Amino acid sequence: MTTQPMRYPKVQELSSEECWAKLRTMVLGRLAIAGEEHPELFPINYVVDRGTVVFRSDPGTKIAASLDRARVAFEVDAFDPATNEAWSVIVKGGLEPVLETAEIIDALTLPLFPWQHGAKAFFVRIVPVELSGRQFVVADPGHWASQLMGIRPASEE
Amino acid sequence: MTTQPMRYPKVQELSSEECWAKLRTMVLGRLAIAGEEHPELFPINYVVDRGTVVFRSDPGTKIAASLDRARVAFEVDAFDPATNEAWSVIVKGGLEPVLETAEIIDALTLPLFPWQHGAKAFFVRIVPVELSGRQFVVADPGHWASQLMGIRPASEE
Repeated sequence: MTTQPMRYPKVQELSSEECWAKLRTMVLGRLAIAGEEHPELFPINYVVDRGTVVFRSDPGTKIAASLDRARVAFEVDAFDPATNEAWSVIVKGGLEPVLETAEIIDALTLPLFPWQHGAKAFFVRIVPVELSGRQFVVADPGHWASQLMGIRPASEE
Repeated sequence: MTTQPMRYPKVQELSSEECWAKLRTMVLGRLAIAGEEHPELFPINYVVDRGTVVFRSDPGTKIAASLDRARVAFEVDAFDPATNEAWSVIVKGGLEPVLETAEIIDALTLPLFPWQHGAKAFFVRIVPVELSGRQFVVADPGHWASQLMGIRPASEE
């Protein structure tokens, strides 16, 4: 046997259907919008709605960007300790305000959770033009799992 | 008693010290870089190193961006089920390649985990110019906690 080099996890590209299935399992993602000096990056709670991503917002950067039909990137990732699988999905697309009455009624029934406070009376839709996703098995989950899940190891608390 | 409107969590702004303390508890964040059509958004594993954020990368968008000293945004968030507190920290700053030998030796000892596969022989540093963070108690964690942590509820599996 030869000495094994450091092993990297095998990455599996996700199909469009798999990406949507993954996105539907989560409620928290991160939205990147071009900024003047730096990109703007926001954690947002979202729902998948008919092939788009919908989120609530207060007037501000995101609403202004939606009125400008800004091109954005949106990312969701997760780690499943049951399977040691980690995945991430990236949606690239354009923002659109949700303006139609019927759309608003539909959107109001979407179970959106405000990550940040505020009334968040406006709804914004990300209309995808590009969807990609990757999944891999984490080689050494014992060490990373708790942090991948966003929880500090008990020993540090 | 009046009817209570929907309650929103109170948001606490984090100090710079608190932001760094939060960043040091995690290993996974998301990096936004300006793109031609859409922003680029990457999940990356990182470490905090002397007031900067360091990550590994293969040649590609991120390395090219570091050579251009691209201005980026970097975000980390987490939910702690022990306290029901959720937080997010945003770092805005410039990318720099880690070029100095001493720096590389330092960086090689950093426990960086490759979120995506590949040798990731290069190190990149985010030098912050702006740091902000928010924390709040999640009002209804029972419903959201498992998803905030990136795990599907058992009932859906």
